[in-house]
Amino acid sequence: MDIREIRPTKIICVGLNYIDHAKELNMEIPEYPIIFLKPTSAIIYNEDCIIKPKISKRVDYEVELAIVIGKKGKNIKKDEADDYIMGYTILNDVTARDIQQKDGQWTRAKSFDTFCPIGPRIVKDIDPMNLNIECRVNGEIKQKSNTKNMIFDVYELVEFVSSIMTLYPGDIISSGTPPGVGELKAGDVVECEIEGIGILRNYVKDEE
Amino acid sequence: MDIREIRPTKIICVGLNYIDHAKELNMEIPEYPIIFLKPTSAIIYNEDCIIKPKISKRVDYEVELAIVIGKKGKNIKKDEADDYIMGYTILNDVTARDIQQKDGQWTRAKSFDTFCPIGPRIVKDIDPMNLNIECRVNGEIKQKSNTKNMIFDVYELVEFVSSIMTLYPGDIISSGTPPGVGELKAGDVVECEIEGIGILRNYVKDEE
Repeated sequence: MDIREIRPTKIICVGLNYIDHAKELNMEIPEYPIIFLKPTSAIIYNEDCIIKPKISKRVDYEVELAIVIGKKGKNIKKDEADDYIMGYTILNDVTARDIQQKDGQWTRAKSFDTFCPIGPRIVKDIDPMNLNIECRVNGEIKQKSNTKNMIFDVYELVEFVSSIMTLYPGDIISSGTPPGVGELKAGDVVECEIEGIGILRNYVKDEE
Repeated sequence: MDIREIRPTKIICVGLNYIDHAKELNMEIPEYPIIFLKPTSAIIYNEDCIIKPKISKRVDYEVELAIVIGKKGKNIKKDEADDYIMGYTILNDVTARDIQQKDGQWTRAKSFDTFCPIGPRIVKDIDPMNLNIECRVNGEIKQKSNTKNMIFDVYELVEFVSSIMTLYPGDIISSGTPPGVGELKAGDVVECEIEGIGILRNYVKDEE
């Protein structure tokens, strides 16, 4: 299915979920995922512009592997999770870092319009446990890892999230970001690439 | 419009927003609202059952006045906010308090299926700045205040939220809860009442 045709009712994201990222931050490996929601109004697609809101002085990229749900489900077990997955795409969990720190709660910082680029396509026939994942800003590599470094794999995430809330077709679960997050400035080109899926490219502009 | 006919794309809730609640907790009056999102999958209606998930030992009621958006808008100013409001309803921001404290982030604690009772109807012709608001459990008054005690009024909330994200028809902004939050147990009947809107009644059950 074309990425522009899915109609997610919610976007569930996961905090710290890469073992190399946890080590980098000297943080303990979490016992369970910490989740938050991004509003669907923040969605943009490949080649669209990320708008930096005036209220933030620091907006960051975060490349993530995202799961697109294909079938309604609740209390899905990890060994049956694959049946509920339509496929995988790339999600850039754009974050106003200064607002995240000020609020404590992460929602506002991650909910601005244009802060959820997804795409460029949905792919099913890949191994989600072993994909190179990378983010480049103006061609320079900023994040580089492999999905094998996830603490909770995609099937465990489907199990965890669906133990809380019913998942609907089109819903998105994003699986956290590897080390190396950093800043975006007006004029930057940010490219999120995952092996087997492609490149999600977006342009950064200041709010007018 | 019947409450069951609206199709919210998101539910935005506000933390501490009653001056009497802030005083009760000895907390400073916040400078701006702290927001979080509840998933639409958590919605239930009047006379439906709230299911206490096994994973939580402590599930609380929180009566709130909720704004239902009637027209798409971004960067709405407070003096034009009324034009964007379809009407008002009652929202019970059911919260797994133990999970809220454990996670730090509030999302999981507030996102379980059935944790968002709304209703019983949408009313426009009331003064949202002066409504008695009350929550009863098994007939006993637990929360009792008036919407005039809000720190940020409904129009300021529309301005604040729409400065972050585009609002769509059916979207809900819930305006925070007054003092007196407390626990729900299986077998309880919880009634959230707001003057001019009515009573939102739900029954509490344990997860099977």
